[in-house]
Amino acid sequence: MTQTIDAGSGTATPGERVDRWLHEFESALSARDVPRAAGMFATDSFWRDLVAFTWNIKTVEGPAGVADLLESCLSSTDPSGFCTTETPTEAGGVIEAWIAFETAVGRAKGHLRLTDEGAWTLLTSLRELKGFEEPQGEDRPRGVSHTLHPGRLSWKEEREREERELGVTRQPYVVVIGGGQGGIALGARLRQLQVPALVLDNHDRPGDQWRGRYKSLCLHDPVWYDHLPYLPFPKNWPVFAPKDKIADWLEMYTRVMEVPYWSRSSVVSASFDQETKTWSVQVDRAGERIELRPKQLVFATGMSGKPNLPSFPGMDVFTGEQQHSSRHPGPEAYAGKKVVVVGSNNSAHDICGALWENGADVTMVQRSSTHIVKSATLMDIGLGDLYSERAVKSGVTTDKADMIFASLPYRIMHEFQIPLYQRMAERDKDFYDRLEKAGFWHDWGEDGSGLFMKYLRRGSGYYIDVGAADLVADGKIRLEHGQVDHLTEHTVVLEDGTELAADLVVYATGYGSMNGWVADLIDQETADRVGKVWGLGSATAKDPGPWEGEQRDMWKPTKAEALWFHGGNLHQSRHYSLYLGLQLKARYEGIPTPVYGLQEVHHLS
Amino acid sequence: MTQTIDAGSGTATPGERVDRWLHEFESALSARDVPRAAGMFATDSFWRDLVAFTWNIKTVEGPAGVADLLESCLSSTDPSGFCTTETPTEAGGVIEAWIAFETAVGRAKGHLRLTDEGAWTLLTSLRELKGFEEPQGEDRPRGVSHTLHPGRLSWKEEREREERELGVTRQPYVVVIGGGQGGIALGARLRQLQVPALVLDNHDRPGDQWRGRYKSLCLHDPVWYDHLPYLPFPKNWPVFAPKDKIADWLEMYTRVMEVPYWSRSSVVSASFDQETKTWSVQVDRAGERIELRPKQLVFATGMSGKPNLPSFPGMDVFTGEQQHSSRHPGPEAYAGKKVVVVGSNNSAHDICGALWENGADVTMVQRSSTHIVKSATLMDIGLGDLYSERAVKSGVTTDKADMIFASLPYRIMHEFQIPLYQRMAERDKDFYDRLEKAGFWHDWGEDGSGLFMKYLRRGSGYYIDVGAADLVADGKIRLEHGQVDHLTEHTVVLEDGTELAADLVVYATGYGSMNGWVADLIDQETADRVGKVWGLGSATAKDPGPWEGEQRDMWKPTKAEALWFHGGNLHQSRHYSLYLGLQLKARYEGIPTPVYGLQEVHHLS
Repeated sequence: MTQTIDAGSGTATPGERVDRWLHEFESALSARDVPRAAGMFATDSFWRDLVAFTWNIKTVEGPAGVADLLESCLSSTDPSGFCTTETPTEAGGVIEAWIAFETAVGRAKGHLRLTDEGAWTLLTSLRELKGFEEPQGEDRPRGVSHTLHPGRLSWKEEREREERELGVTRQPYVVVIGGGQGGIALGARLRQLQVPALVLDNHDRPGDQWRGRYKSLCLHDPVWYDHLPYLPFPKNWPVFAPKDKIADWLEMYTRVMEVPYWSRSSVVSASFDQETKTWSVQVDRAGERIELRPKQLVFATGMSGKPNLPSFPGMDVFTGEQQHSSRHPGPEAYAGKKVVVVGSNNSAHDICGALWENGADVTMVQRSSTHIVKSATLMDIGLGDLYSERAVKSGVTTDKADMIFASLPYRIMHEFQIPLYQRMAERDKDFYDRLEKAGFWHDWGEDGSGLFMKYLRRGSGYYIDVGAADLVADGKIRLEHGQVDHLTEHTVVLEDGTELAADLVVYATGYGSMNGWVADLIDQETADRVGKVWGLGSATAKDPGPWEGEQRDMWKPTKAEALWFHGGNLHQSRHYSLYLGLQLKARYEGIPTPVYGLQEVHHLS
Repeated sequence: MTQTIDAGSGTATPGERVDRWLHEFESALSARDVPRAAGMFATDSFWRDLVAFTWNIKTVEGPAGVADLLESCLSSTDPSGFCTTETPTEAGGVIEAWIAFETAVGRAKGHLRLTDEGAWTLLTSLRELKGFEEPQGEDRPRGVSHTLHPGRLSWKEEREREERELGVTRQPYVVVIGGGQGGIALGARLRQLQVPALVLDNHDRPGDQWRGRYKSLCLHDPVWYDHLPYLPFPKNWPVFAPKDKIADWLEMYTRVMEVPYWSRSSVVSASFDQETKTWSVQVDRAGERIELRPKQLVFATGMSGKPNLPSFPGMDVFTGEQQHSSRHPGPEAYAGKKVVVVGSNNSAHDICGALWENGADVTMVQRSSTHIVKSATLMDIGLGDLYSERAVKSGVTTDKADMIFASLPYRIMHEFQIPLYQRMAERDKDFYDRLEKAGFWHDWGEDGSGLFMKYLRRGSGYYIDVGAADLVADGKIRLEHGQVDHLTEHTVVLEDGTELAADLVVYATGYGSMNGWVADLIDQETADRVGKVWGLGSATAKDPGPWEGEQRDMWKPTKAEALWFHGGNLHQSRHYSLYLGLQLKARYEGIPTPVYGLQEVHHLS
């Protein structure tokens, strides 16, 4: 391996080879010599750009893709000053380098993987806009003026004035619909970027999105993966934060980060005026009707925002209770009751487990196969290199982990994932054997790439096991299979005729595409213009092709003008809120943002 | 200089010399050879111990002091495993080293300054108790149990149960009186150390201690100095946090750190039962009378807790308003009014400045000379090496800064301070000239050692200028001098006969010794047993000798059994709460804590 490299590179160190590549790349770019720059990429190669060149979140493939991107973006981007920010390393014939550079309007960071053939992967990401840097560290606000003058307002008075005015006498530039972790993280970014924004949420206070869920719910991702921007969790924060604790954190975060946030505020409708390029957003704020007129509208209503409630014959004649999993109040009221839970993914397992703990008689109806990974195993093998105490100790900061993760092109990500899940299968063989013996339909994803790819492709189809799978394996949670045919007064009847007595039916049947919210709040035409949100176009179940290269419509311009989607897990909310924030800031400041490769729409939902 | 060292040490590197010293020191200690160990200290030398050897906060001086300490503490401490934790450095003939070691019951860190004569300064500090390490990093709580079982309580249910029980059906081991930054920081430490504790505060909610103060108040110390334990401020936190912002932080900190905290709870009285070694603490909790029975009682009522209200003849005939500075509501109501502010320290200046900004006619009555430093200058020259963005960049973490600060013995600290203040006087010469011309009585402390020594010695006598001193220099705030003789119906009359018309008189006359609170809540006999709290015994104004070596009665055992004092600025609350926490934890767990050198009482208040 080393020999192959040396053949092409003499005795150059990884650092020298990267420097040479960067130098040649920059001189090709300076000369606007697109073929030469594109020729420096390997035949199988990927350039992922996060807003630095494309004002989009975009991956192009191979020299032809690179050439296409550069033809469009090079002169407006005007990149320069490429350099490494730490010493490049080499392993298995691949050199890895952290890089930095500037564009006409901003400062950017990136990551490069170099082989003998040229660049294999390149990540470029805009980090800040020149002249609009966030006030941090040495440039943090002073907090007090050292020159006294009559009429000076205190911090509290300034805050109170903003609260009185913003959305009332002064319009926000951005309205964010939804104040869960996504909306809050974006709100914090926009505050730091000094973009007037307002986050709207229909709950009583920040964090209630979590407080209202079933009582045993904890984050399924470990703490190292979950930090919000600016304010990391302390070292004593639990690995898997209980829902009420994360709720408290979100509430206090909203306050100390000074996120402009309206609680008890539901969006009733919204429409965009093409003439004035302004949204009209009708808001019900604690019973009062208010019109907001922002220039940009962000849906942060959540991956798990819009419940998929199935429609089975007999739902109207069933005399017991029926709930979507998102409305399940917790197990307390159901001791001794018969409960049928339709579904077998995360929520279904957690709800079944808590019901069993509280003495309910629980049946899980598995309609299709589910992928299960034990939480500890996932944490260790799946995330441990990037998000763990081990990673922290080896110098992988959260930002670095996010960038490493972002540097792996989605097109080949499954290849990196498959071996991890093979190791998980080995480690927990006994567990999977027991599950199988109990009749549980288990899968590892269509290509064996496991949980994270399922999340990216379809956002469903898995359970991160925090204990309930053992109850299924042990028969403590009864397992049935098949589709629901209909309900009677007191039972759920499956297609094979099996009849399940029930006092309560919980539909753990997941959530719809986020453009469903657009249809509800704007109109169907706009929802269709945007098309399906989320997924990669992997041509696997619930993620039809063609290949998109990036997650559909997330954190980037859509076919609907001035309409954006933000969300995902805490990691995504943290990292991608930066890029969405910068896109909004640039528009707010009137910086040109020519978008390359706007999302095509191939599916309506 | 180098030559002198080489003469004594051959060609040994600083690291080798430290290793040799530590090795010899440890072997003398292992052999219980006190004279040999004491002989390794220079004639003028200082050993400062924070709870590691002495179960006290204690500085001993010279070989004789070291011998005395070791005679008492060596065998119970049983120290071992001395080593450096990073490569020692040498400058100006002094080698500095960061060290670690163990004791019979704990792990400790320290700092050593070595000269040719031997140890010049040694700092030893207990960091954790073996078997009772705080759950952090890899050992952080999981947050979720991965084995389900009937009756399992959620985090929220556990927290609710604790709230129902603690102080009601289950007694806290520690009661902390006062829930400002001191009580909150200690409460957070005790929570992490799993010591059942309850913090009591009479305000409506955490942070109200700050919210209720005058509206222009900002922290006078910069952000790098002010972090609380566990959860540092984010990078965008203002340099000088406005009072309402720090209040919000304290409120959210209390919640996310799960500090057991009773708001609207005043201590009415307390008494200690020598038989049962238990306190009886009578609490008024929102109107309900409750008796708490802790084993340990901590006064965290604050340096600025108990107002010193002067008693001038005529205060009863004066028809305008009179307030202690701590009760001043802010300037809004006083536009166009005549205000006399008695005092010329921090509060006096801030209040005068805000009143002037709001159109009041303000006179400051300076009764004695005051030391003023411009905030930016203090930040740069006084704190910059340890607490600043510059320090952060050069690797001086908050913990390291705290330890470096702690490593300088109080006996010689003024020698390090004097040159800093000489530089400040030079830098701001114009400012001081203007002040002098305006007739302001200015001093630099009796020995020219400036603000921080005044703080440690007497906790008063200075103003960190955030703008008001310019108003005094410019005559916008009128300045009068001398003692108040009496008040009439409408005026304040000074001893020289000057008569000042006043609608409002603000007494910015400072605060009393914390044992005043003990007299109020327990009894005078206990207050006298404890004696004066705070100060070093420097034999300067308001800090009578004899020399104490450490701050009187703070964070360490007092002459009153099971009675403690905690407080100070945010830096002290952060750092010393660790040692107070460990002392309380050890007692809670029944670990022997033989105290060396218990505080003598030389002054009653």
